Amino acid sequence: MRMVDLIEKKVGGEILSGDEIRYIVKGFTDGSIPDYQMAAFQMAVVFNGMTDRETADLTMAMMHSGDVVDLSDLRGVKVDKHSTGGVGDTTTLVIAPLVAACGGTVAKMSGRGLGHTGGTLDKLESIPGVCIEQPMARFKEIVDEIGVAVIGQTGNLVPADKKMYALRDVTATVRSIPLIASSIMSKKLAAGTDAIVLDVKTGTGAFMQTVDEAEKLAHLMVSIGKLVGRECVAVITDMNQPLGLAVGNALEVREAVELLSGKIPAGDPLYEVCMLLGVHMMRVSKLAKTEVEAREKLESALHSGAGLEKLRRMIAAEGGDASYIDLARIDELCRVNKKINVYPERAGYISSMNAERIGTAAQILGAGRATKEESIDPAVGLVMKKRLGDFIRADEPLCVMYVNDESKLNAALNMFHSAFEYSDAKPDYRPMVYDVVRA
Amino acid sequence: MRMVDLIEKKVGGEILSGDEIRYIVKGFTDGSIPDYQMAAFQMAVVFNGMTDRETADLTMAMMHSGDVVDLSDLRGVKVDKHSTGGVGDTTTLVIAPLVAACGGTVAKMSGRGLGHTGGTLDKLESIPGVCIEQPMARFKEIVDEIGVAVIGQTGNLVPADKKMYALRDVTATVRSIPLIASSIMSKKLAAGTDAIVLDVKTGTGAFMQTVDEAEKLAHLMVSIGKLVGRECVAVITDMNQPLGLAVGNALEVREAVELLSGKIPAGDPLYEVCMLLGVHMMRVSKLAKTEVEAREKLESALHSGAGLEKLRRMIAAEGGDASYIDLARIDELCRVNKKINVYPERAGYISSMNAERIGTAAQILGAGRATKEESIDPAVGLVMKKRLGDFIRADEPLCVMYVNDESKLNAALNMFHSAFEYSDAKPDYRPMVYDVVRA
Repeated sequence: MRMVDLIEKKVGGEILSGDEIRYIVKGFTDGSIPDYQMAAFQMAVVFNGMTDRETADLTMAMMHSGDVVDLSDLRGVKVDKHSTGGVGDTTTLVIAPLVAACGGTVAKMSGRGLGHTGGTLDKLESIPGVCIEQPMARFKEIVDEIGVAVIGQTGNLVPADKKMYALRDVTATVRSIPLIASSIMSKKLAAGTDAIVLDVKTGTGAFMQTVDEAEKLAHLMVSIGKLVGRECVAVITDMNQPLGLAVGNALEVREAVELLSGKIPAGDPLYEVCMLLGVHMMRVSKLAKTEVEAREKLESALHSGAGLEKLRRMIAAEGGDASYIDLARIDELCRVNKKINVYPERAGYISSMNAERIGTAAQILGAGRATKEESIDPAVGLVMKKRLGDFIRADEPLCVMYVNDESKLNAALNMFHSAFEYSDAKPDYRPMVYDVVRA
Repeated sequence: MRMVDLIEKKVGGEILSGDEIRYIVKGFTDGSIPDYQMAAFQMAVVFNGMTDRETADLTMAMMHSGDVVDLSDLRGVKVDKHSTGGVGDTTTLVIAPLVAACGGTVAKMSGRGLGHTGGTLDKLESIPGVCIEQPMARFKEIVDEIGVAVIGQTGNLVPADKKMYALRDVTATVRSIPLIASSIMSKKLAAGTDAIVLDVKTGTGAFMQTVDEAEKLAHLMVSIGKLVGRECVAVITDMNQPLGLAVGNALEVREAVELLSGKIPAGDPLYEVCMLLGVHMMRVSKLAKTEVEAREKLESALHSGAGLEKLRRMIAAEGGDASYIDLARIDELCRVNKKINVYPERAGYISSMNAERIGTAAQILGAGRATKEESIDPAVGLVMKKRLGDFIRADEPLCVMYVNDESKLNAALNMFHSAFEYSDAKPDYRPMVYDVVRA
């Protein structure tokens, strides 16, 4: 087999066999296929796509390029949740403990934030003492004992994806749905859970900017799950505004604690997306017969404080000071030099929010990284005071910025204000959830 | 400027500016843009193409990546001829001297054969003593004195093309018409002639397998010539059978000598394509007012022996033994261990010839190279006895193979026979010339 012939096949619109795809992934991972041939192949995929079967073969080949976690010695249905990345998305810190409180087994390897998107690991690390690097044995021990653990990736998982993604990043081949799907799914499958609930974001703050693209990605990922024998459900949710009101690491932990303390009402976007994801995690975990029953159980665990208690125990197990996980103390993590009320540029209905720009404003303040090497400031960020479609007076704050380094404030404000459009008439209602995709 | 953004533009179907294209070519040539980004860019061009303006900018940037030959101190209109590569194409050895005999100035840098296609340099080297590596000063001296010189590429011409072509070859990006056009034209422009006559081959032995593709390539190259201010004409000719009857190096020199000695009649495909190219070389050189006048002059130079004399003088000037350039002695160059008559697999009309396979059969006998490193045997090859459309009896030879290494004969015969289809009815007439493309 010669790589040049396989590229030629893809250029000609032919379908590659499983053997051919395994040859490509193995060769690229071990270095026998050079970067330039892989770059040409990936670009051919950008234009000619891949069938579901090809994408599943690619995903499996990538998954087997490194270690595959074996969770089979843990009890119950091991469930994972993955989001395609958004702004103010604190769902993991809410639903992972909540599902565990309902008897679920949530074993999740999470990532860091990059650019305008946040990452669960950074949020966890804003709690003093938390160590997200845990050996596999300890990870399993925590899951076994508490029913939930969220840690950083451990072991040599999916080296093919690391190499392929690094190459895609510099060759303008990031936006290919089969390549995105195989990148996500190979990592989720290598992490060893039985079931996966996927949250595909769409809108101004998301990677998939249109519902149509998000639908394609969701269907493809669910199809891959089915082809490889894992239970997989995808929800498509709105990212045309930050999901929660808080954007920033400790600020988002505080919002999660508020939600788990019953301080955020049903109907709030963060609350509803948490429930949606939780319901599907309960269903694939066989912990509820219907969606209604699943939601009742989750809300009962929320109002009893059992969810918050699971979060506390998980944080303690990962070395963190769980005493902060309390409405009375959580504010201590959000202490900054200055809190600044930011007012709108005009009064009116908020007709458009660019969530990416709001995320970038928080990143400029120090809440995120422009490059992987940068460090972050856990306390800074912003808390929105209004939602998309709300009316705002000129003298009402649109958000509060949490600032430590005032030299960054102007750039953050410029970025923030550029995110908004206002109108005199009330804008149309926008759904929070577009679809639920099952195999 | 960042290469990843320029790839993204091309992926998105945008048009690149001259500055952007120069940045790409310069960066790739000096190594600051890595192979993998260039491979991704070239693949994006395969799918999204380039405008004529982009292709002209690319051509000029490639041309200026190395030395550019200055022929301005030579008298008259300097004219070059280029073919996109075929089988049994001995036109250069016929028309370069013929046009010189009519007062033209033919300064041509030629190439070697690869795969099934022959190369003029290999043919010249089958004549004892010929040295195709001549310094630039000597090249000009020969052109000035005799009116014609054909040598190998000298100096550091178009290093960008060498790097780009080597990369295209291993990334399945060879078949892109803008990339083919810029590769050919950058070399022709760097070679410094005022006018270029292009022979775009189409058919089973050609790179452009359909007339439609050949038309596109021809129009694009002529358009580039016009955009950069060089006179440029392209003819589209048939390559559904070897152009001459001889396929092999000394064998093709012999056929050229036969033609220049008046032994091949008008109407013969090689004769007619030589005249067609010669007529346009005469016209762009301002040596004839009409095509009829050009042909008359060329035929007069042919029948007077002036063309053959020019070939003799050129070969002598390049160190060769010109006494072989004579019907009485030329056979000495074609001496082999064995000449084998090859009979058809059945009687009938020859309804299809795959010229690539015939060229490959000659290559297997030792007339050509599968890789650049292989050496060739100048005497071997084959001479066709029939043309496409001819009727052949089972006891008539289809060709004579000139063989030195009999161990290769079986493979060559298998390849050769696979090139033919026969029919009981006379096949339709096929034109030899499809089009002439002018700016």
